[in-house]
Amino acid sequence: MPVKSTGKKGASAKKAASKKSPARKSGKGPKYVYVFGKKTDGNGSMKSLLGGKGANLAEMTRIGLPVPPGFTITTEVCTYYYANKRTYPKELQAQIRAAVEAMEKALGRSFGDLKKPLLVAVRSGARDSMPGMMDTILNLGLNDQTVDALAAQSGNERFAWDCYRRFIQMYGDVVMGVQKTPDEDHEPFEVVIESLKHELFPGQPDVSDTRLDAASLKELVKRFKKLVKDRTGKAFPTDPWKQLEGAIGAVFGSWMNDRAIVYRRKYGIPAEWGTAVNVQAMVFGNTGENSGSGVAFTRDPATGEKVFYGEFLINAQGEDVVAGVRTPQPVEELKQVMPEAHKELERIRAILEKHFKDMQDFEFTIEEGEVFMLQTRNGKRTGVAAVRIATEMVREKLIDWKEAVRRIPAEQLEQVLAPIFDRGALKKAKLIAKGLPAGPGAACGRIYFNADRAVTASQRGHRVLLVRVETSPEDLRGMIAADGILTARGGVSSHAALVARQMGKICVCGASGLEIDYEKKTLKVEGFTYKEGDHISIDGTTGEVYDGEVSSANSEIIQVLVDKSLDPKKSRSYQNFAKLMTWCSKLARMQVRTNADNPRQAAVAMAFGATGIGLCRTEHMFFEGDRINSMRQMILAETNVERKAGLDALLPYQREDFIGIFTELKGKPATIRLLDPPLHEFLPQDAAARNAVAERLGIPSEIVAERVKALHEANPMLGHRGCRLGLTYPQITEMQARAIFEAAAVVQKKKIKVRPEIMVPLVGFARELELQVEIIHRVAAEVAKEKKTKFNYMVGTMIEIPRACVAAGRIAQTADFFSFGTNDLTQTTLGMSRDDSGTFLPQYQELDIVPSNPFASIDRAGVGELMKVAIERGRATKPKIKLGICGEHGGDPSSVVFCDTLGLDYVSCSPFRVPVARLAAAQAALAAKR
Amino acid sequence: MPVKSTGKKGASAKKAASKKSPARKSGKGPKYVYVFGKKTDGNGSMKSLLGGKGANLAEMTRIGLPVPPGFTITTEVCTYYYANKRTYPKELQAQIRAAVEAMEKALGRSFGDLKKPLLVAVRSGARDSMPGMMDTILNLGLNDQTVDALAAQSGNERFAWDCYRRFIQMYGDVVMGVQKTPDEDHEPFEVVIESLKHELFPGQPDVSDTRLDAASLKELVKRFKKLVKDRTGKAFPTDPWKQLEGAIGAVFGSWMNDRAIVYRRKYGIPAEWGTAVNVQAMVFGNTGENSGSGVAFTRDPATGEKVFYGEFLINAQGEDVVAGVRTPQPVEELKQVMPEAHKELERIRAILEKHFKDMQDFEFTIEEGEVFMLQTRNGKRTGVAAVRIATEMVREKLIDWKEAVRRIPAEQLEQVLAPIFDRGALKKAKLIAKGLPAGPGAACGRIYFNADRAVTASQRGHRVLLVRVETSPEDLRGMIAADGILTARGGVSSHAALVARQMGKICVCGASGLEIDYEKKTLKVEGFTYKEGDHISIDGTTGEVYDGEVSSANSEIIQVLVDKSLDPKKSRSYQNFAKLMTWCSKLARMQVRTNADNPRQAAVAMAFGATGIGLCRTEHMFFEGDRINSMRQMILAETNVERKAGLDALLPYQREDFIGIFTELKGKPATIRLLDPPLHEFLPQDAAARNAVAERLGIPSEIVAERVKALHEANPMLGHRGCRLGLTYPQITEMQARAIFEAAAVVQKKKIKVRPEIMVPLVGFARELELQVEIIHRVAAEVAKEKKTKFNYMVGTMIEIPRACVAAGRIAQTADFFSFGTNDLTQTTLGMSRDDSGTFLPQYQELDIVPSNPFASIDRAGVGELMKVAIERGRATKPKIKLGICGEHGGDPSSVVFCDTLGLDYVSCSPFRVPVARLAAAQAALAAKR
Repeated sequence: MPVKSTGKKGASAKKAASKKSPARKSGKGPKYVYVFGKKTDGNGSMKSLLGGKGANLAEMTRIGLPVPPGFTITTEVCTYYYANKRTYPKELQAQIRAAVEAMEKALGRSFGDLKKPLLVAVRSGARDSMPGMMDTILNLGLNDQTVDALAAQSGNERFAWDCYRRFIQMYGDVVMGVQKTPDEDHEPFEVVIESLKHELFPGQPDVSDTRLDAASLKELVKRFKKLVKDRTGKAFPTDPWKQLEGAIGAVFGSWMNDRAIVYRRKYGIPAEWGTAVNVQAMVFGNTGENSGSGVAFTRDPATGEKVFYGEFLINAQGEDVVAGVRTPQPVEELKQVMPEAHKELERIRAILEKHFKDMQDFEFTIEEGEVFMLQTRNGKRTGVAAVRIATEMVREKLIDWKEAVRRIPAEQLEQVLAPIFDRGALKKAKLIAKGLPAGPGAACGRIYFNADRAVTASQRGHRVLLVRVETSPEDLRGMIAADGILTARGGVSSHAALVARQMGKICVCGASGLEIDYEKKTLKVEGFTYKEGDHISIDGTTGEVYDGEVSSANSEIIQVLVDKSLDPKKSRSYQNFAKLMTWCSKLARMQVRTNADNPRQAAVAMAFGATGIGLCRTEHMFFEGDRINSMRQMILAETNVERKAGLDALLPYQREDFIGIFTELKGKPATIRLLDPPLHEFLPQDAAARNAVAERLGIPSEIVAERVKALHEANPMLGHRGCRLGLTYPQITEMQARAIFEAAAVVQKKKIKVRPEIMVPLVGFARELELQVEIIHRVAAEVAKEKKTKFNYMVGTMIEIPRACVAAGRIAQTADFFSFGTNDLTQTTLGMSRDDSGTFLPQYQELDIVPSNPFASIDRAGVGELMKVAIERGRATKPKIKLGICGEHGGDPSSVVFCDTLGLDYVSCSPFRVPVARLAAAQAALAAKR
Repeated sequence: MPVKSTGKKGASAKKAASKKSPARKSGKGPKYVYVFGKKTDGNGSMKSLLGGKGANLAEMTRIGLPVPPGFTITTEVCTYYYANKRTYPKELQAQIRAAVEAMEKALGRSFGDLKKPLLVAVRSGARDSMPGMMDTILNLGLNDQTVDALAAQSGNERFAWDCYRRFIQMYGDVVMGVQKTPDEDHEPFEVVIESLKHELFPGQPDVSDTRLDAASLKELVKRFKKLVKDRTGKAFPTDPWKQLEGAIGAVFGSWMNDRAIVYRRKYGIPAEWGTAVNVQAMVFGNTGENSGSGVAFTRDPATGEKVFYGEFLINAQGEDVVAGVRTPQPVEELKQVMPEAHKELERIRAILEKHFKDMQDFEFTIEEGEVFMLQTRNGKRTGVAAVRIATEMVREKLIDWKEAVRRIPAEQLEQVLAPIFDRGALKKAKLIAKGLPAGPGAACGRIYFNADRAVTASQRGHRVLLVRVETSPEDLRGMIAADGILTARGGVSSHAALVARQMGKICVCGASGLEIDYEKKTLKVEGFTYKEGDHISIDGTTGEVYDGEVSSANSEIIQVLVDKSLDPKKSRSYQNFAKLMTWCSKLARMQVRTNADNPRQAAVAMAFGATGIGLCRTEHMFFEGDRINSMRQMILAETNVERKAGLDALLPYQREDFIGIFTELKGKPATIRLLDPPLHEFLPQDAAARNAVAERLGIPSEIVAERVKALHEANPMLGHRGCRLGLTYPQITEMQARAIFEAAAVVQKKKIKVRPEIMVPLVGFARELELQVEIIHRVAAEVAKEKKTKFNYMVGTMIEIPRACVAAGRIAQTADFFSFGTNDLTQTTLGMSRDDSGTFLPQYQELDIVPSNPFASIDRAGVGELMKVAIERGRATKPKIKLGICGEHGGDPSSVVFCDTLGLDYVSCSPFRVPVARLAAAQAALAAKR
C-alpha cells in the first residue's frame, strides 16, 4: 500500500478505477471502505461486499445498538488483491486514511497519540465466518509510547503492558510469521514466557500468567521484540499505520492459507468470494472487575430452547472466552454480577431476534459496565435445535412456515432421529464426568487423543471418540472422522462446540474433571485410567460421560412413529418434526420413496412419510437363512432341470417376502429390482466353506471349486450381472416374476391393492429390456389366469450405465419408468470403482479435481449431463414416462435438489434419510418457485 | 395361396394393393412376378426386388445367353408374407399362373402333361446368396404319371425314376419336413434307401446308388411315399400346382430358419430384405454321357489368376457338383470330353466378364451337348485374389481404379500379409496329402473333427484345424473358430471352399487320401494315424498337407517391405498391393497411424504406410529385461526418496526407448501415452515370486506382500490407474516427461525432427489434465533450457470414459488433441468388461441384442453417440482440435468408416492392420463423396 503516505486523491485514482477496478464507481472513484459505529453507509444485506461481520456491524449501527466505531474494507479489495499479484487498488489507501480519521474524530483519540491513543482490533470477515482464517488482532496501535498513555488512562500499568505483550505476541505470530518450525516443540513466544517465569520463579512449575507483574511484563515485551527481530530480521513496527497495513495484509493473505482452502472446499465456498477486513476501535473487557467479555445466543443452539444462552468471563478480552483456556460462566450468572449489563443484554437479545428473525450468536464486551456489541450473526445450531427454533419461530409469528422449511439444513435433519442412550442401560452405567451438552445425541466409541490416530482408527472401521483438552482447527480432520467429541476445557462457544454444531457431531465440552495426558495417551477421571482405544460413552444432550459402552435406544421420534412406545403428545421434538414434515408435503413436487428390502424397513420408511418403495433389492432375500442353499443349488446346476429345482425351492420364499412387503405397503407402489449381483457373490470363496457347500448339496467339491473358478471375474462390476443374468438364465426372471405376481394375487385377495413396478437392472440395449419384459408379461398373464385376477403393474428399467442414457429413446419404447441407479452410473461414467477409489479420491478432493465425493453427491457436470440426455430422449419417446432415482444420492440434499431441477417424479433413499429427502424436496420446490 | 384356383383379376386385387401392398402399382395391380429365359421384364440392377439370382437370370436373358425359361417371385412377396402372418398378396396367384402358362407355351410342355410334362426347379434367391436357406428343389412336376412321360421322352426309365425319387426325397425333407428327429441317427430317407439295399444286396456294405435299377427305384418311390404319409399324415402331393405352392412356401419359410438368421447376423443383412423365389424349367445334366453340370469362375477365386477355373461332373445334376459327394473334374478337362460345350463356355466366360466387369461365379448344365446357364454372380474370392483381380482389371481397363478400391473388402486385405510356410522348414516337412488349394496361406494347428469340439479347443487358446470329410452349414461355428479347414471330399465350389473364401480362412479341400473316422476321432493318411488334438499343417496356397508343425515365414509383401529380402519387381503380389496402397493414399481423407511400442513395430507400420504412431504404450517398456526391478522398487517405495530412486533408474531406459522410436519415425508424430495400468500389474501375485522380488530388492517379504495386498483392487479396470497414478505420484509423470524430452533433444541433435504428442490417459475431469499438463510443460521448459533446444510437442488426452465425452468442452481448453480410447470407452459405456463378457456376449449376439461384438466393431448407437458428443463439445471449444482413435477399433473397417463420418483426423491400429485401415479409409472417403 502503504497506508500512511497520503496519496493524492482525484485524477489518478479515477483513472485506475476505470481501467481495472472491479468496484462500482462513485463521484470519488470506487468505494472500498464502509464505516460503522456512530453512523454507517452499509447495511445487513451487503454481506457479499462487507462480509457477514461487517454487514451486521453496519446493520446493528442502523438499529441503534451500541457498536464501537470502525470501518470495513470490502471483499472486492480481496478479489483485486489476488487478481493483481497481491497489490491493492490505488484508491484504497486514501479511503482507509479517511475512515481512520473519522474514527479519531468520533472518539477524540488518534493513532500514536501520547495521551489518548487510538487502539483498534482488526478482524477478517468473509460472507460466512470461516475457521482457518486469521481471526483477530487486538490492541493494534500500541507501542512503547502509547502503552504508557493506556496505563495512565486506565490507571492500570499491568493491564496496559499485558495488552502490549499480547499484541506483540499475536501480531508477531500472525503478521510477521514468528511461528513454531517443524523442529520445534513449542510456540516460540510461549518458550520466552516459560523461560522468564523460570527465571522469576525458579523451581515452580505451572506459574500462572497473572503472577507476572507490570515490570515482568515490560521485560517480556523486550524479549518478545528481540525474538521478532532475531527471527525475522525486522524490528517490531512501532508506527500504528505500519501496524495496520501489516494486519490488513495478513487478513487478505490468510484467505489463501491451507486451512481456509480446506474449509472452503468442504463447504463449497468459491475462492472468488474473498474476505473483508474489519477495523474497529478497541473496547476493553479486561480493565477490571467491572468489565468482561462474552458470547451469547438468543436461543440454545444445541437444543433450540428459547432461553438466553451463553457465557462470559469477567475481566477478559473476547479471545479468552472463545479460546477455551478459562472455562467461562453461564450468562445467567451475569444477573448477579452485573445486573445492569445483564438487563441491557436481555434488551439487545430481544431486539436482535425481532430484527434478524433468526437465532443470533453475538459477541459483546462490557467495558466498565457499558455493553458493546462486537458482532452478531445467525447462530450455527444442531439439527435438533434447527427444527425446534424454526417451528417455534413460526408459532411466535417471527417467520412464516415456508421460511422455516427453507431455513433448516436438510442434511442436519437426520440428527433428530439419532439414537439416544437406553434408559435402562443408563441406570446401570457408571457416570464418570459431566460437561456442557454441546451436540445432542448418544455416542460410544474408542477414545483417541490425536486427530491423525482418530482418522486411522476410523478408517479401520472403529467408532471413534476424539478426546482433547480443547480442540483447534488442526483437529478438524479428527473431528470429522470421530463419532463424538469430548473436551476438558471450553464452553458452548469453544471451537469444539462450534464445529460439533456445524457438523452435527455429538459433543460434550468443558468436562473439567478429565485429566488428559497426550504423551502417555491416557485419560484419567474419577480414579479410572483409560488408554487410547478404550471405550467410553458420551451423551451430548445431557453433557454426561460414562464408563465403557452404554447401549442406545431409539430417538423420541422413532419411539412415537415406529415403536409406538411414546405418546406423540408427550414429545415436543416429535411435534416439531411432524409439523415440519406436514409443511414439506405441502411444498414438495417430488415424491420421496424408500429403498427397502423387507417389510420392517418399509414400515419405518412409511412412518417417515415415504410414498412407496423405490428400490427393493430381491437378492438380499436370497441370503437369509436356508435360502442361500437353494440359491447355490441353482448356481451350481449343470443342467436346466437342476437349475429349475433350485429356483422352484426359492419361489415360495420370494413369494412370502413379497406378500409381506405388499401387505405392509397398503397399496403404495413398490419398485422391485430383479436379481442383480454376479452369481459368485452367492458362493463361498474359501476352500473350507466350499467343501461344506459341496457336502450339503451333495455335489463333488471339485465341481463347486471349478464353478467358483469359472464364475470368477476380473471386473465383477462390469461382468455377468444385472439383466445379463436374466437373459442367460431366463428361468431366474421367470421365477422372480412368478413370485411377485403370485404374491400380488394373495394380497389382492385380502382386498389390499398391489402396485408392483418391476425393474430390470443394468439395461444398456433396448432389446435386453424387451426380452426380459416379454417374460414378465407372459408370467403375469399366466398367473392372472391361474389365480383368476388382474394385475396393475409396470415394467421399467434402471438407468445405470452410460449406454442406457444415450439409448434411452429406444429403451423408453418398452419401459414404463426409468429409475436412475446413480451408484453404478457414477462408477461407469467416471470409470471409477467406488471400492477402489479410496486410494486416490481423497487426494482428488484436495487437488480440487472433484468438488465433492461423487459417490455422496451427484457429479452434476458428468453423471448429471448423462441423466439429462436420458431424460430428454426418454421423454421424446414417452412424454409421461415415470422418472426416479434409487442410488444413494437419493438421500443427499444437494442431489435431491438437482433431481428436482431435472424434473424427476421421485427420489428414493434409505428409510432414515426419508425425512432429509422430504425436506430437501420441499426446499427444491421453494427454490424452483423463486 | 393356393396357386391353382384361378382367382379373378381386377377390382379386388387392385383394392388390396391400394390398401396394404408394398409394391409399385401398374395397370394390373402390383407386379410380383418377372419372367426370364426367352424374353424378360427384369434386369441385373433389380437385385433388391428379384434377388441376386433372379436379377442375373434376367440380365443373362437380356445379353442373349442361353437361360432355361422361368420366372422370379419378388422379395416384396417375402416381406408381405412375414408382415401378414405368412399369407400372400391376393394378386400373386394369378400372376404365377400366367407366368407358368407362358413357360408352358414357350416350351410346348405343361404341368402334368402325360406326354410332355413341364418340370421345374424352384430356388431361393436373396440379394446375395445365403447359406442356410432352402437352396433348390429339382424335378418338380413329377408324379406317378409324368414320370412315365419323362421315361418315354428320355428313353431312360431308370433316369426318370431316379429323378422322381430324388424329388420326393428333397421335397419330403425340405417342404414336408420329413427330417431326422433328435432321437434318430440318420436321415429317414437314407434309412429307407439303406434298408432297401440291404434287402436287395444282403450282406454287402456300402452299395452304390447306381446299382439300384429302375424297378428298385420304383419300389423306393413307393416306400418314400409311405414314409411321407407315415411321418406327416399327408399323402405326397401329386398335383404339380400343389407341389409348386409347397415349394414356394418352403423358400419363404426358410428365410427365417435358424441358420439363415445366424448367417444374416454375422454378415449384417437385414431381415427386411427378404428372398425372391425363382421357378425355372428343368434342364437335365444327368441324361447320360453327353450331359453334365458344372460350376465355374471367370478367374481363379483363390489366387485371382486370369484363368478359366472350375469343375464339372458328367451325367450329373448341379447339386451333385456342389454337394461334394463326387469329386468333380477340373473344367479344362471338358475340352477333351465335350469340346463344343467347352468352347461355348469359354465364349460365355468372355461375355460375362466383359458385361459384368467382375469375376463371375456361374453354374451351367449341359443337356445333350447344349449349354444352359442356371446362374451367374460376382464370385466370392480370397483377399489375395481380390487384390489381384481388382488391380489387374484396372490394367485391363475393365474398371477404373476407384472401382478397384471400392471393390476389395478391406477386412480381407490382411490376408495378403498372412504368413506362408518357411521354405527351409517345408523341405524338411513330411508331405502327407494333397488337395485343392481353396484358401491361401499357411496354417498349423491341432486337428478336430467336430465343430463344437473345435470351438471349445479354440476357446481354450489352441490353434485349431477343422478336419471333415466334407463341411456343411452345421459346421459353420467350427469353421469360424478354426485357423484352417481341411476336407477329404469336395472341390473348389464345395461348401468348405466357399466359406473359406468368404471368411479368409486357410483351406485345403478334396484331399482324397484322408481317411476320417468321426467315431474314433482319427485321421488316417499315408500310414499315419492322427488323433484329435494332434498337430498337422496345411498350405492353402498349394493344397499341401504336412505332418506336425511346420514353421512359417513372412508373406512376400513383408519380405519386400520389411525384411527387404525380396526384390519388389519379382513379386506380383507386392506390385498389386503397392498399386492399391497408392490409390488409397490418393483417396483417403483420414490418416492412418499405428499402435507401436518399440522401433521395430514402428518400422513395420511405416513400411505399410502409417503416417505416425497413434499410440505408444510406455508401460510395455517397463516389463523388458531388468527394468521391471526398478519399476517394482518404485512401486514398493514407502517414501518419495525411495520412489525417486526407482524412477531415476527407469529414466535412462525410457529415454533410450524414445530415442529409438523418434529416430525410426524420422519426423513423423508419435502419440505417447503416459503410464496407464494399475501398479499391481507390475508386481508378482504368487508368494514365491514375491519372495524373490523381496530378496532382490532387499525389502522384507512381508512388506512386499502387504503392498501387493494394499494394491489389490475389486475392479482394477475402474481403479487407481491412468492419470490417477500421475496425479497421486506426480514423480512418475515428471520422469516420463523428462525421458521424452531428453530423448527428443538427443534425436534433434542428429537433425531428425521429433514431434511428440504426449497423451494423458483416463482423464474424466478437466482439472486432471490441467494438473498433469502443468508438469509436462514445466519439464519441457526445464529440459529445453538444459539442452539448449526447443521442442515442437503437443499435449492431449485419451477420451476413454463417458465423463470425458460430456466434459469434452472443458477438457479441450487444455488438450491439443483427443484420441478416442474406444476399448475402455466401450467397457465403461456398456458397463461391460471385455475380459468377463465371454460368459454372455456370444449369447447376446445370438439373441440379437448386439449387432456385432462391440469390442470388435464400434457400438455406434452407444459408444458412437458419446463420441459424437465429445467431438461436438471439443470442437465448440477448440474448432481445430486434432481427433483420432487408438482403440483396437482403429483397424476394423466398419469402425474406420464410422470414424470418417465422425470427421476424425486419423485412426491408429496395430501395424499389420495398417493396410486394412488405409483401404477402409479410402473407401470411406469414396462413400462420403457419393
